Amino acid sequence: MELTELCTRAKEAKYKVAALDLESRNRALLRIADLLNEQHESLILANAGDIAAATAKGMSIPMVDRLRLTKERIAAISEGMRQVAALPDPLAEVLEEWERPNGLRLKKVRVPLGVIGIIYESRPNVTVDAFALCFKSGNAVILKGGSDALHSNKAICAVIRQGLEECGIDPDVIALIEDSDRETTKKFMQMYGYVDVLIPRGSAGLIRSVVENSRIPVIETGAGNCHVYVDAAADPKKAKDIIINAKTQRLGVCNACESLVIHESVRESIFPMIAAALHDKSVEVRGDEEARLAAPEIVVEASEEDFAKEYLDLLISVKTVKSVEEAIEHINRHSTHHSEAIITEDPVAAEKFLNGVDSACVYVNASTRFTDGFEFGFGAEIGISTQMLHARGPMGLKELTSYKYKIYGNGQVRG
Amino acid sequence: MELTELCTRAKEAKYKVAALDLESRNRALLRIADLLNEQHESLILANAGDIAAATAKGMSIPMVDRLRLTKERIAAISEGMRQVAALPDPLAEVLEEWERPNGLRLKKVRVPLGVIGIIYESRPNVTVDAFALCFKSGNAVILKGGSDALHSNKAICAVIRQGLEECGIDPDVIALIEDSDRETTKKFMQMYGYVDVLIPRGSAGLIRSVVENSRIPVIETGAGNCHVYVDAAADPKKAKDIIINAKTQRLGVCNACESLVIHESVRESIFPMIAAALHDKSVEVRGDEEARLAAPEIVVEASEEDFAKEYLDLLISVKTVKSVEEAIEHINRHSTHHSEAIITEDPVAAEKFLNGVDSACVYVNASTRFTDGFEFGFGAEIGISTQMLHARGPMGLKELTSYKYKIYGNGQVRG
Repeated sequence: MELTELCTRAKEAKYKVAALDLESRNRALLRIADLLNEQHESLILANAGDIAAATAKGMSIPMVDRLRLTKERIAAISEGMRQVAALPDPLAEVLEEWERPNGLRLKKVRVPLGVIGIIYESRPNVTVDAFALCFKSGNAVILKGGSDALHSNKAICAVIRQGLEECGIDPDVIALIEDSDRETTKKFMQMYGYVDVLIPRGSAGLIRSVVENSRIPVIETGAGNCHVYVDAAADPKKAKDIIINAKTQRLGVCNACESLVIHESVRESIFPMIAAALHDKSVEVRGDEEARLAAPEIVVEASEEDFAKEYLDLLISVKTVKSVEEAIEHINRHSTHHSEAIITEDPVAAEKFLNGVDSACVYVNASTRFTDGFEFGFGAEIGISTQMLHARGPMGLKELTSYKYKIYGNGQVRG
Repeated sequence: MELTELCTRAKEAKYKVAALDLESRNRALLRIADLLNEQHESLILANAGDIAAATAKGMSIPMVDRLRLTKERIAAISEGMRQVAALPDPLAEVLEEWERPNGLRLKKVRVPLGVIGIIYESRPNVTVDAFALCFKSGNAVILKGGSDALHSNKAICAVIRQGLEECGIDPDVIALIEDSDRETTKKFMQMYGYVDVLIPRGSAGLIRSVVENSRIPVIETGAGNCHVYVDAAADPKKAKDIIINAKTQRLGVCNACESLVIHESVRESIFPMIAAALHDKSVEVRGDEEARLAAPEIVVEASEEDFAKEYLDLLISVKTVKSVEEAIEHINRHSTHHSEAIITEDPVAAEKFLNGVDSACVYVNASTRFTDGFEFGFGAEIGISTQMLHARGPMGLKELTSYKYKIYGNGQVRG
């Protein structure tokens, strides 16, 4: 289908999905969850086409694995959809209610954002997740997935549309852009007036490209150059456990630790033990001169660029500072404003850090890996916002809504 | 000053203003309010340069009047600043607080947006307003005003910077872009990483241009093609009073009514009386065929474009519909999602309209003119958002903030 036609249909469908009650939305989600399992063989068959093409073009084995659908993975995706159905209705909430001296009653209520565009890379499970979250929160969704997953995404969307139709819902509440040329993607980002919000999910390069080319409001997600600061009053065991967890529990994720900041007073007491523990986990440690002096057999030289890098790999940078204030300044200059942690037993240093660090999530004595919609208790996650507008940090169902004011009068005019 | 240097300074100053306590912010606002009055003569002198240039280039008399500063106007601007100082601290609020099963305690707190860029047209009072609201909410601000007001804006900014310095605050929390060429404005809109949010204030053309050229998140404000729908169950007096107020109380404002929607069952009963009342107020009424038949001496032919126009003038369009559903559909197609009203005594029609109309503010039996931060009780207003992201409708101090999560642990790592 031509892009403008597809966007027009989504725009028309958005008011239909916004008007569905919770029961209708949940019934459709559960029906689609069933259909995904029932039709797993045809989904795996479609996926095989993507796998074959990816293998033929020499895609790396971990990437091919991310692309693969199996019966078990489809069951997990289906189960995820059931969990979204079980979540409370984000649209039910009255946010505020008050009366003015002239008798006007104001009610601030949640409403869907409208048409949400999601631009993402390979993994076909995102197709289902994104639909489930957008639909549950009353939005229409237009998906632009990676071309490597096109066969899989087409098959998944067909199942979703079938489920919607069976439940008497306009299937145009979901659309998949099948053209994979750059021109179409660029045109999609210009569909102001049709698409209300764009959410890019994927690499830093993808996100940059969307921010630079879009005329539609974008929610930036993702890149995390996360810091852990070991304060003068740090507990050594907490420091080691948290740093090892934040750096190595999963490497390729945005809430992994990429950089250490060490107070000079613990440079010789605590840091060598941490450096050794990182080394044991095969992490290359790149530090400034002070860090290298403290653990010369382990720490190699860091360049200025190291401090700005999201490695997503077995690498970490180390900066030594003279005070919590210098730590805050270093972090605010280099971080992507995602997640940072302080390890300290000193409540004054902790509050300084919590207040001064300009990031979505700032931790005291806990791993940055907790920045996640599920870990926060949101029950779901569409991504992690690293911008200031609208939503910051993990975004669940509520973050896929806006609000409006309903105002009740009895003839009031302005004097 | 060169643009990058100016933006760098604002970026560095943003953490300083964010760290100021309420008392320090208020003290500075009050000192600046005093200085504006004390230095009114030099402000009027600077303004005279703008007035002379505007007159010489043939600017219309109402526009020249908007540009003019007088002793009384400066006193009013100063008083506005005192009122902002008297408002509660938007940064004091803890939005949510909860604990996870693993013992992590999460606290969602308000924080400033950072560096706010304001791009606006002539009126020099906006310079003071925008500074006061951004500063009170802990933000740094970069102003790009209209070139017609440059002398006035420079003088005002000098007073503000003097007041800040007297209170020991970095004056770089406010900056004025003095170059008025298009290239500088365009470059300003590309200062991603320096400016956190752009808010354009002014004509629809200005706002479009910012949306199309900015790489920075924008809050769209302004354009209002506001509708009043007269339902089958409308009270005739309320209908007339509200329509006359919404259309004629002030013409050039975004919350003025630009279009009527009339249920066919009141086309011959109520509408001719309304048309006559509009005519008495010198409003040209442009209607569809049904409307023209009901008041042929008054109503002239409307073109399809009339229904999409924000006249800001003595003009109104009229569309006849068969049902509240058709009214909602017509409005959602043509409105700018700003403010719309239904006139009805039927609570079922009222709820349908409140739920179905996709606008920031939806009224029952009240004038659209109430869409305003002061009328809502916010005590201040930076603009009225017509987009879905971040803020919708009147934006006061709270809408100039974001949030962050402070997370308190005792050694938690992710399993």
